[in-house]
Parts: sequence; C-alpha cells; structure tokens
Amino acid sequence: MTQQSDPTGLHRVVDDRPVLPQAAERLDTRRELWPDEVRVRVERLNLDAASFRQLEQEHGGDGAAVRDAVLGIVAARGKMQNPVTGSGGMLIGTVEEVGPASPLGLVPGQRIATLVSLTLTPLLITDGLARWDGRSEQVPCDGHAVLFGRSIAAPLPEDLPDALSLAVMDVCGAPALTERVVRGYDRPTVAVVGGAGKSGSLSLVAARAAGAGRTIGVVPTRAEAEVLTRAGIADAVAVADARDPVALRAAVGEAGGPADVTVVCVDVPGCEGGAVLATRDGGTVVFFSMATSFSAAALGAEGLAADVTMLVGNGYVPGHAELALDLLRRTPALRALFEQRVGG
Amino acid sequence: MTQQSDPTGLHRVVDDRPVLPQAAERLDTRRELWPDEVRVRVERLNLDAASFRQLEQEHGGDGAAVRDAVLGIVAARGKMQNPVTGSGGMLIGTVEEVGPASPLGLVPGQRIATLVSLTLTPLLITDGLARWDGRSEQVPCDGHAVLFGRSIAAPLPEDLPDALSLAVMDVCGAPALTERVVRGYDRPTVAVVGGAGKSGSLSLVAARAAGAGRTIGVVPTRAEAEVLTRAGIADAVAVADARDPVALRAAVGEAGGPADVTVVCVDVPGCEGGAVLATRDGGTVVFFSMATSFSAAALGAEGLAADVTMLVGNGYVPGHAELALDLLRRTPALRALFEQRVGG
Repeated sequence: MTQQSDPTGLHRVVDDRPVLPQAAERLDTRRELWPDEVRVRVERLNLDAASFRQLEQEHGGDGAAVRDAVLGIVAARGKMQNPVTGSGGMLIGTVEEVGPASPLGLVPGQRIATLVSLTLTPLLITDGLARWDGRSEQVPCDGHAVLFGRSIAAPLPEDLPDALSLAVMDVCGAPALTERVVRGYDRPTVAVVGGAGKSGSLSLVAARAAGAGRTIGVVPTRAEAEVLTRAGIADAVAVADARDPVALRAAVGEAGGPADVTVVCVDVPGCEGGAVLATRDGGTVVFFSMATSFSAAALGAEGLAADVTMLVGNGYVPGHAELALDLLRRTPALRALFEQRVGG
Repeated sequence: MTQQSDPTGLHRVVDDRPVLPQAAERLDTRRELWPDEVRVRVERLNLDAASFRQLEQEHGGDGAAVRDAVLGIVAARGKMQNPVTGSGGMLIGTVEEVGPASPLGLVPGQRIATLVSLTLTPLLITDGLARWDGRSEQVPCDGHAVLFGRSIAAPLPEDLPDALSLAVMDVCGAPALTERVVRGYDRPTVAVVGGAGKSGSLSLVAARAAGAGRTIGVVPTRAEAEVLTRAGIADAVAVADARDPVALRAAVGEAGGPADVTVVCVDVPGCEGGAVLATRDGGTVVFFSMATSFSAAALGAEGLAADVTMLVGNGYVPGHAELALDLLRRTPALRALFEQRVGG
C-alpha cells in the first residue's frame, strides 16, 4: 500500500486509464483499509430495479442463473455494476472497521445503508449468495464493502422497518433538492411530474414544507390520480401523458399553473419539452429522471425561447436522508403510500 | 387555416403524434402566415458543423451529392434537420412579412439571423441551392422560412461582418448564462473548460465582466494555451485532458482552483466527472457541451458526494445576442480570436 489514497477512491481503480471508480472496469476489493476508508460487513444488497429487471429478462426468470450472473459480475468487476444498464443499487451492513483518517463519522457496530451507488463501491461476496433465490431485488449477502473518504452512508433508523428506510433513502436526493429550489422562490407553484411515485410523492411533501404556494401532482392515469388525491399530499392532481408537451402544459395550466418549479420524476424518455412548456419564464425545471436527454432539454428550451433554469438532479444534497426520513415520519399519508409500495 | 396558431409552432406540425416542431418529422412550409408568425426571405443557411461533417463523410466529399442530400432532407421534412446528427444550424435573411399579432418586434426589410435552430424552422428552398458547391457549411440559398410567436431572431449588426456576427450569435447562450451564474457569487473563481474555443473564450470574457475574482481557461494542448495566454482574456491558463478527472482537478487546482463556477464548453464526451471534481462544494457546473451525458453528470456528482449545482446550458437567455456582440466589440483580443476562426 505504497500508493496514497484519494477521497474519490481512485487508488482502488485497477484499470489502465485514470478513471473514477464509477467509470472503472474493475476495483481492488482488498480487506486492508487505506487510512481514510471504512469497511462494512454486508448484510443485504438492494439491486437497482432496472438492473434486476434486465437480468431477469436475460435469464428468462431463472433465479439460479440470475444469481450466477450477479456473482459473476461482482467477481469480475469488484463491484456490482450491471454492464447492460450501467446501474447498481445500494447495500445494508454493519460498520466493521473505521480508518483513523475517515471523515464519515461512523463507528464500528453501526448498522448503515450506503447512499453512494454500488457501481463505485468495492464489494467482495463470500457466501456465494446462498440465501438468495435470484427472484427479488433484495439480496441477502455476506461479504465486505469499502467506503471512501467522499462516500456517503447513513445510520439505519431504529424506529422504521429497514425496507421502508431503504425505499426512502433510495430517492432522498429528490425531496432535498426540491426543498432547496422551492426556498429560492416566494410561495411558488410547484408541479411534480410523476407525483404518485416514490421520489415524486416525497418531492410534493418537501415542496409544501418548504413554503410552496400551491403544489400540483401530475400522474399518467386516473387510478394514480385517485391514490394521490386520497393521500391529500398535493393541492391539485392532474392527469396527463408527460411525453405529450401540449397535454402536459394544458394539465398543469388547468391545475393552477404554469409552474414556477417543475420537478420531473417519471422514468420515461421524452418529457423535456412538456416540462419546459409547463414552467413559466424565470422558473426552474429539476430533472430527476435518468431517462432525461441532455440535448433534448438544452435544445428544447432554446427552441421555445424559454428562460428557464434547468437542473441536473444531483442525488446528493447534505442532510438528504435525514430530511426525507423526517418528512415520512411527519406525514402519515406519505408513509402509507410508501408502505403500500414496499409491502411493509 | 381554421386551426389556431400556437406560439411554439405546433400548428405547423404535420405528424400524427402531438410533438413540438423540433421533434416533428415534417413541418408545413406554406407561405401564408398565421397572425403571430413572421416570414423571412432566406439569404444563407449556416449548417451545424457536426451535421455538415456527417454529410460530407457520408458522400465522400462529393459536393453535388451533399447538395442533393440537403435538398432532399428539406423537401421531405420541411426543415433542415440532419436525420443522423439531429442537428440543424441557423439562417440569415430579410424579414418579408410580419403577422399582426407577432410579438417579435421585427419589421419588413430588416436583415436578421435566426437564433432558434433550423431543426424547428419551416423552410422552403426555391433555387435548388444552385449557388452552393456543397463544400462548406455556408449555404447561399433562396427561399422562405417562418418564425413562430416564441421564436428568436436578432437584427444583424451593421458595424460587424456577417460571418463574425453569426459566429458570435451561434454560441451567445454560453456567455449570457455564465454571466448570470457568476453574478450569483461574490468574486468567484471561474474555470472554463475549452477556454480557447468560441463559446469558451466568450464565457471567459463574460465571467470577468460579471465580477469573477479569478478566471481560469483550461485547454487541451500547449498550442492552444499559447493562443489563450497571448489573448490575455484569462487570469490563468491550464493544460489538461478534460476527460481525465484527476488531471482536470489537478490543473484547475494548480491554477488557483477549485472553482466556484465551472463552465464546460468542449464537445467531447466524458468530461462530467472532472468538471464536478474541479468545483468546490456549493459551486455550480454549467454544461454547454452537447456531448454531456445526463446520467454521467447526475450519478457522478452523487458518487462523489459533491454538493454542486449542475445546470443544463440553456441556449436562450434574454438579451444573449446583444450581450455577446457587445463583449466582442469591447474586447479586441476576443475579436481577434474570432476573426482567426472565421477567417475574417
């Protein structure tokens, strides 16, 4: 270990090119820690939904084959990053050892969830995933993972079931950034596209807590509209296909828009134009969907002469996990929505 | 014309699906105007560089074949949008007729450049491009084009050569947004990646004018560094491959960084991680490169626990053309850089 560590984890990249751990083909999973690292004894992996779906389809739902595929990926790459989808997931475990220079504030014995992606987390599996049937994203797992100086992890709350906490932490960047953007306006109208989903419902509640004058939840179907209306976490609920810019503009307009802040939480391509059109000049669009096309957003706004600020939804805002868990605790209707989704 | 017009130009989309003009397969190019439209007599098209390069390669540099290809695209689609690159360009012409309800403030006889892309501008070519040899992006052209209620066009300045004005207008969104972001900080350090290019050099000058405490131009080669140093429009010049995150962080750091504001103006993929790493917490990254990957930016910042605001570079900011032309007029070294590029 003559090489110095880097807070980004560069020292564990074993590729020939100088790339960050996320872009790396393979990471070094050795147990020994550099001074600013933390080792976690893994208890469970939570595979990204898109990644699990892809593996399931590729192997025709054969659980044993899916398990072998995950084992193969982790053995080859030293991390769980699906080579087709590029995505990973997160993990739960217990802090095993903390390097003397670690800035993360963790202590051995703490149960935590990692809030950085598995795509950049060194991971060694030691139990062959023997307790996993390959049929669910929740993967019981023994082994170790490593956190870097700039990684993020959050203690698992003792007052909430793990599955519920994880579901919230998985999307906690969206409500945190929504809150920050909403605070920059005076009682703004906030439209959340995909308002009945996990990140969407959290963002609606965050917007209201941050002082929104009016919140509008946009959903694709009447069934989702009923769910969201019953939950009572939006001032207005609108039904529209977000890929149809005219329909989205009209729906938000009829519900009290245009919006000062539009938050896009639906994972379908082609929502950029409608989001821009639903937002007034001087407003902000926050894109949280990984299906967002950079050029469609940039050229679309220019083509509409729309003076809107467009943000790439950064999944990290300091204090994001605490903020989101707190919103859940304080909002029974939101908690009920989440419990339905995680089956908790 | 029983259909009502829409400021976005929806009424001229002839596709089966309700899409905005930019996403449309085909636009209606009829001469008669809806009340909020403007018709322009076209004088020259300026094809997007990426589009022209693609056509030239596809046809092995055969000018007549390139000309036929452009004629074919415009005849089939009613607009100049390269089906491979998706890009268009801009045009110069003279205002021919202004609808009574047009909000653009144009008058017949004005020479203008369109600042919305050709990819959403109805265009009919009437001279078969007889005066074009198919060997340059500058296309002499007779015909007409239509501007919508929300289009943007700027009068061509009389004190500057057309080619110079066009080169500036083509990238004027970058300095305008840079100026706005820089004004949000107190004497910030601003790094411009690709600082010797058109949008990069304008952004450096805009940052200084907006009150930057220190400006850093990052370029890929020693030759470009010499050009930028001689021009004197950056406080520091650094050489780095922007695709190497470690090198970019180090170069910006040695030049006085990390940056409060990082502006990415290089059209190569893979610069997201380096841009985030070169920026301090609380800072802003503005992505102007069309090669930016949305998910690489979003996941990259999250993976680095980087609390940075990431903006999709919107090509439209009110007053952008005037601001950029004014920076050029007031900065002889910037003008000299541009004149070298356009051969003026």
